[in-house]
Amino acid sequence: MKVLTEYLNFSTRGNADIINITGQIDSKLKDTRLKNGIVNISIAGSTGGLTTCEYEPGLEQDLKDLFEKIIPQNRGYVHNNTWGNGNGHSHLRASLLGSSLTLPFSNDSLVLGRWQQIIFIDFDNRSRKRRITLQFIGE
Amino acid sequence: MKVLTEYLNFSTRGNADIINITGQIDSKLKDTRLKNGIVNISIAGSTGGLTTCEYEPGLEQDLKDLFEKIIPQNRGYVHNNTWGNGNGHSHLRASLLGSSLTLPFSNDSLVLGRWQQIIFIDFDNRSRKRRITLQFIGE
Amino acid sequence: MKVLTEYLNFSTRGNADIINITGQIDSKLKDTRLKNGIVNISIAGSTGGLTTCEYEPGLEQDLKDLFEKIIPQNRGYVHNNTWGNGNGHSHLRASLLGSSLTLPFSNDSLVLGRWQQIIFIDFDNRSRKRRITLQFIGE
Repeated sequence: MKVLTEYLNFSTRGNADIINITGQIDSKLKDTRLKNGIVNISIAGSTGGLTTCEYEPGLEQDLKDLFEKIIPQNRGYVHNNTWGNGNGHSHLRASLLGSSLTLPFSNDSLVLGRWQQIIFIDFDNRSRKRRITLQFIGE
Repeated sequence: MKVLTEYLNFSTRGNADIINITGQIDSKLKDTRLKNGIVNISIAGSTGGLTTCEYEPGLEQDLKDLFEKIIPQNRGYVHNNTWGNGNGHSHLRASLLGSSLTLPFSNDSLVLGRWQQIIFIDFDNRSRKRRITLQFIGE
Repeated sequence: MKVLTEYLNFSTRGNADIINITGQIDSKLKDTRLKNGIVNISIAGSTGGLTTCEYEPGLEQDLKDLFEKIIPQNRGYVHNNTWGNGNGHSHLRASLLGSSLTLPFSNDSLVLGRWQQIIFIDFDNRSRKRRITLQFIGE
């Protein structure tokens, strides 16, 4: 049984930019040579979220529309008076969706549905450099 | 320290059908003979979600009403133009709630509140056969 | 590789009271002397939730406002007819946000953004005594 730490580094455009990170996580999993276990996927930062979805342009748009509907960008959040950078909505969206996700792997492969992909959503209102931590635990 | 994989297989009616899977997970935990650790509970697929709740008919109805309110079934999602199977709302609900859940166990038992149960919600718009992966890690 | 269980005990005021538990979790992590791994943070109970956020008074208010907007307190939930304690909204908010959170640690420290904190939100409609379970897995 081992703990192995890997990282994903990439840039985003912000504004609910959706990045499919499944292939990179699968590749890191192969590198670990672990067969069975779990991987904890986490973003350090308060304006990014993680989840899974079928990754196709229609749903990408639907996800953006969903967050704009339940947590609109222009709504006078109190946070916007604190720092003045206008990203109150980014923080709320990230807290609601969650900054961390844990998934199983078995026989060297992530356990996912045929169309199910792991996505990172950058809710911040500007482009960002991001680093995601992958903590693999298994044997 | 071990990783042990178990599965739950069952059918659902879809349409936000809520299945209480606590008893089956507890039973699988007893089978592993592990005493302390965590269990990662995951659904492979893009239209099912996992969470915990007090499992009683009133809250079952309230949960269905909640998802219908924030992500209504009939709203012209772009995804519905992609495949034409009308389940855009199912995907969005699943991505928002999350397809995976990790809980602790201690002294052979899941650590849950007295009334707290683990539920799977099938958001798809038709009945489905589902397989949930349980990844037990502990000793 | 070890599993080590720790607990946090505290009282809340309920009504979406937000408690920053980052410092206490970090302190428990130091006690375990583990260097790398994950910590599963879970609340036993059906009316509390866990997530991360930048912890400042503006966002605290914005989070409360968000939950009041999407799951208002006074809305005639069916659950309120079951027990008559008027906390249907508390249950729904907790199920949506999630009762459990798993985060990585590396080099003795939680992997978090500079301003990112771990928060517990007590959604119940009264003050509560709470116990959070920390399951540390690592080496």
